[in-house]
Amino acid sequence: MIRCAVVGATGYAGELLLELLLKHPRIKLTCLYAKVDYSQPIYNFFPKFYGRLDLLCKHLEIKELNKNSDFVFLALPHKVSMEIVPHILQKGKRIIDLSADYRLTDLAIYKKYYGVVHQDNENIKKAVYGLPELYRKKIKTARLIANPGCYPTATILGLAPLFTKKKLTDINSVIIDAKSGFTGAGRNPLTHFIFSEVNEAIKPYKVNIHQHSPEIEEQLGIIAGEKIKITFVPHLIPIDRGIISTMYIRLKRLVDVEELFRLYKNYYKGEKFVRILQNGKFPNSKDVLGTNFCDIGLSLDIEKKQLIVISAIDNLMKGAAGQALQNMNIMCGFDETTALT
Amino acid sequence: MIRCAVVGATGYAGELLLELLLKHPRIKLTCLYAKVDYSQPIYNFFPKFYGRLDLLCKHLEIKELNKNSDFVFLALPHKVSMEIVPHILQKGKRIIDLSADYRLTDLAIYKKYYGVVHQDNENIKKAVYGLPELYRKKIKTARLIANPGCYPTATILGLAPLFTKKKLTDINSVIIDAKSGFTGAGRNPLTHFIFSEVNEAIKPYKVNIHQHSPEIEEQLGIIAGEKIKITFVPHLIPIDRGIISTMYIRLKRLVDVEELFRLYKNYYKGEKFVRILQNGKFPNSKDVLGTNFCDIGLSLDIEKKQLIVISAIDNLMKGAAGQALQNMNIMCGFDETTALT
Amino acid sequence: MIRCAVVGATGYAGELLLELLLKHPRIKLTCLYAKVDYSQPIYNFFPKFYGRLDLLCKHLEIKELNKNSDFVFLALPHKVSMEIVPHILQKGKRIIDLSADYRLTDLAIYKKYYGVVHQDNENIKKAVYGLPELYRKKIKTARLIANPGCYPTATILGLAPLFTKKKLTDINSVIIDAKSGFTGAGRNPLTHFIFSEVNEAIKPYKVNIHQHSPEIEEQLGIIAGEKIKITFVPHLIPIDRGIISTMYIRLKRLVDVEELFRLYKNYYKGEKFVRILQNGKFPNSKDVLGTNFCDIGLSLDIEKKQLIVISAIDNLMKGAAGQALQNMNIMCGFDETTALT
Amino acid sequence: MIRCAVVGATGYAGELLLELLLKHPRIKLTCLYAKVDYSQPIYNFFPKFYGRLDLLCKHLEIKELNKNSDFVFLALPHKVSMEIVPHILQKGKRIIDLSADYRLTDLAIYKKYYGVVHQDNENIKKAVYGLPELYRKKIKTARLIANPGCYPTATILGLAPLFTKKKLTDINSVIIDAKSGFTGAGRNPLTHFIFSEVNEAIKPYKVNIHQHSPEIEEQLGIIAGEKIKITFVPHLIPIDRGIISTMYIRLKRLVDVEELFRLYKNYYKGEKFVRILQNGKFPNSKDVLGTNFCDIGLSLDIEKKQLIVISAIDNLMKGAAGQALQNMNIMCGFDETTALT
Repeated sequence: MIRCAVVGATGYAGELLLELLLKHPRIKLTCLYAKVDYSQPIYNFFPKFYGRLDLLCKHLEIKELNKNSDFVFLALPHKVSMEIVPHILQKGKRIIDLSADYRLTDLAIYKKYYGVVHQDNENIKKAVYGLPELYRKKIKTARLIANPGCYPTATILGLAPLFTKKKLTDINSVIIDAKSGFTGAGRNPLTHFIFSEVNEAIKPYKVNIHQHSPEIEEQLGIIAGEKIKITFVPHLIPIDRGIISTMYIRLKRLVDVEELFRLYKNYYKGEKFVRILQNGKFPNSKDVLGTNFCDIGLSLDIEKKQLIVISAIDNLMKGAAGQALQNMNIMCGFDETTALT
Repeated sequence: MIRCAVVGATGYAGELLLELLLKHPRIKLTCLYAKVDYSQPIYNFFPKFYGRLDLLCKHLEIKELNKNSDFVFLALPHKVSMEIVPHILQKGKRIIDLSADYRLTDLAIYKKYYGVVHQDNENIKKAVYGLPELYRKKIKTARLIANPGCYPTATILGLAPLFTKKKLTDINSVIIDAKSGFTGAGRNPLTHFIFSEVNEAIKPYKVNIHQHSPEIEEQLGIIAGEKIKITFVPHLIPIDRGIISTMYIRLKRLVDVEELFRLYKNYYKGEKFVRILQNGKFPNSKDVLGTNFCDIGLSLDIEKKQLIVISAIDNLMKGAAGQALQNMNIMCGFDETTALT
Repeated sequence: MIRCAVVGATGYAGELLLELLLKHPRIKLTCLYAKVDYSQPIYNFFPKFYGRLDLLCKHLEIKELNKNSDFVFLALPHKVSMEIVPHILQKGKRIIDLSADYRLTDLAIYKKYYGVVHQDNENIKKAVYGLPELYRKKIKTARLIANPGCYPTATILGLAPLFTKKKLTDINSVIIDAKSGFTGAGRNPLTHFIFSEVNEAIKPYKVNIHQHSPEIEEQLGIIAGEKIKITFVPHLIPIDRGIISTMYIRLKRLVDVEELFRLYKNYYKGEKFVRILQNGKFPNSKDVLGTNFCDIGLSLDIEKKQLIVISAIDNLMKGAAGQALQNMNIMCGFDETTALT
Repeated sequence: MIRCAVVGATGYAGELLLELLLKHPRIKLTCLYAKVDYSQPIYNFFPKFYGRLDLLCKHLEIKELNKNSDFVFLALPHKVSMEIVPHILQKGKRIIDLSADYRLTDLAIYKKYYGVVHQDNENIKKAVYGLPELYRKKIKTARLIANPGCYPTATILGLAPLFTKKKLTDINSVIIDAKSGFTGAGRNPLTHFIFSEVNEAIKPYKVNIHQHSPEIEEQLGIIAGEKIKITFVPHLIPIDRGIISTMYIRLKRLVDVEELFRLYKNYYKGEKFVRILQNGKFPNSKDVLGTNFCDIGLSLDIEKKQLIVISAIDNLMKGAAGQALQNMNIMCGFDETTALT
């Protein structure tokens, strides 16, 4: 049994991590931490765990954490993770960090989008971007995983095959119109998070300035072998969980839609958590709710050489906790789908 | 034109008051106040008013308020109103207070349910409980209206006819199971108010200890001419607006359901905002959404002498701002339905 | 491996049964049937199963069903089950029927509430009411299970302990005010089922005439050893899944709330799927979402000898498919929680 | 008083038309028609009108309609309107048709997208496209108005200013990603319209093949003076009312965002129902809920010469019934905002 800690157990990603880890046959949850006034049972924060999980949720103590755990999930706000990671990593623990702190290699970009100077340049270089479909091999031996953002997961999986084909794809034409359920915004007591502000509203936000833009650009740029620039507009939708990423890409040459389907099916051959839908079908976020799937649909306007790719994930599963568990399974040599189906 | 002020303009009742007052042909909105850091256009708090209402929302200044308004709506949290009322009332302004501060005559009960000692005993005696269907005559000449709570409005209107018939009604058998949309909880940045906490959840709260219990008991007790005790369980429902109050009352004698319908129709004869539904029909909160109606349906289990009364209101309209405007119309001698249909 | 068939695979209970059976390590799904125009993959009806379940969903053929399955779930509308059950039962299959057809022993009551004469009196006598917390022993050896209704499950579990104490409980004082998510209404293409009819609405329906009333009365009557009569008002709430049953019962004598908690905890000692909440806590339907739990909270008004019991279930889990699986686990000698945690 | 008829009174647009017409001081509602089995009060279909509107809703009788009305609203499904229009128009009635039957001038396109041959070529030529901000002058004297579709209204208002500037705008680069509340889908009893299918789901549909595409293309083409081709992907969102249209357009030359704001503000100068938001602000569908406004926000990515225009409307107001009433006000010489504020 691997002893697991969850730091940041009182947020939405933390909550789902607990659910998944409870189902995992090879894991023993040993420590829960969060920004709390005093130690108390986790079911005080999430009554659903009453009778199922009796662990206390405590204010973080690094020494205790290092003593009682082998594997650490950090489900913390951005900027907080990088203060903690060095102290755990040096003790030989393996870490999956769900924040953005180790996702970007360009520190100037980090500062621009997250507003602070990065404090842990050294470990950034060691971090592996935890998108298994792209980096499974590196993930196996990684000590520090930067678990991808929710929008980047849906978007990169939707576009990766195209970015391996630069003769086909106009890689700088990418427009991403994304829609997300509200858990993606986090569990923060803000006036504009109140039910009655969000309910019955469709709301674009951070129009073309969202912090996930550079993450998508860096990853797609790595595939393409050159820097790229995207247009990205996210929207908040009054549902709990689910992302639809609708992506518009111009093609450079005439192509048959069947060729595109072959490209996608080949690229994701053998992948357990990516489903390429049948021609004429498109994803519905509810069809991936509670699952670790990324569903992808394609539509081609031949006349305009305009391709539309639509992907769907559950933002808390494949977009956060589910993908974290998938990464852990890979790192620990477990079946990749354990506790995920 | 009557010059109106709204104090507490940034809450949900305040917002709807502005909407209604904007539509009112005899009213001129002159001052808006709320707990704000600095004066700014009201559309900064409610973008829907952009281009429609340019007034600044300021931190309260009593002198300015008294100078620039004739009629004052207080849409403030409980306990705050009573600090302000005396200073406005003594200047001869008329006031409609949407808080609970002037609804209860028993100050011990006020302290028990609201947790503070009442500071304005004197004006409590002058306040009129602003339920027009019961107190229209007193409202006409009142200087200070205690606008009823949302649950009390739905419940008292649903039960009042029965409480005039003590030979028929077992007045201490009343059980009230109420369900409310989330605006009833107010516009407060609390963790358990976040969209994803409330959405897809049915949640009982303040089980039999809700502060609207004594308000209902006092008002029904006045009708009955004796003290009564109710059972009251409210539930939060993930919708914006709407209350269904389902009430269970035992009858003391066999009675035909048609007799009950006659009782209700007589009691509310001529009332513009109470609708007694046809036998076999029951209210749906959506049918009163955006209106000032209270819909009432009746079902009688003759065998058990058990009567079920179900009433529906829009908690922000008949349960708050709409009823406040109805009271103002009465006080000012306007048609009672002005700006309400 | 036990070969399982699901008849009525295209409804909401059927859909969830498939999810649960897919997770079950001792089960092999072999046949799916529903009212379909032609045989087609189940993922045509539920795209979520694409890539996960390739079975065809066919129009029912009893011979094929009997040949290819050992265990049959009937997730059919009321009145349809009883035409099928005899033909499967006589072939020695075990059956869990999720309809109401075998829940009531009084055929006159069946006719009154379901509008048709019952066609299978014989097997009604053999059927076991599938509420494991009450009838686990009989379920073990049963051939035909009448899986309880969703409201009855929440309500009977909430009241059963009290009905064993007739000196304490006024058993004819029971008032049940229930609230249910919309999947409880079924998957029928009706105008009043359209999203925009249901959304943002709280709606009482079948006031005191719901077909689950006699089911509750029969079961509570069995515990009490005499006929009882309840008052029951259900309400539709715009969420997918979840029931809150708020129950009001008068007590015959003064009692301490701790005595009541002891009664409940004793009664449900060792039960895996019933949680008695701490004093002062009440169930939230979202805390049991996706689980097989029934959560129960208690509140006592000593002065009025009025007890309030509030229970919560997921109507599709403990209220339908989850309970069906729990029953199957018991019948097959599996761990009762298999595929349910 | 103008005598008004509503044909198709039992759909969502019809329902809202009734609400608006009831508030209109110069209108008398005289006839309601719909596909009904027998004549019955309109409140049987919409209980909200109980006590407010006693008119019968009947099966259509053209003679009676012509006799009793001066002005006719057709809120009918596509394909039905064109069978009725000739018979009313020839009697000298004025008509506002909310269907698509008179919106497209190219009959081949009509056949392609609506699947039937158009039956009334003659009157198509006389019809005026009822977008007041573009065609107010023609609307004044029109006898037959083709009331615009909901997506076209939001989209054309968002793009019209740019299409007057062909040196600035790459008019064939337009990508429209639209999101709509569910009333836009109509009031049809279909399985995939059931609450639990739609709730908690984000769903793209009719990807790049929606019937509103040619309507947008025709109207923008008229402004540009040449044929254009758009990319259009609509999405269904689980809210009652509201459209967000997010539009992506490439510019041909470097331009300052302030120049774009001037362009928009000039174009919509004096318009009562178009609001150009402040720089940095973007529309929220809830801010136009229940209003006839179209809110527009702009964001420019100078580096990529990529412009993002986001518009919001209430699909039943400015997208259907509200715009119909605005058109009627113009046709009858009333203040354009009557019954709309």
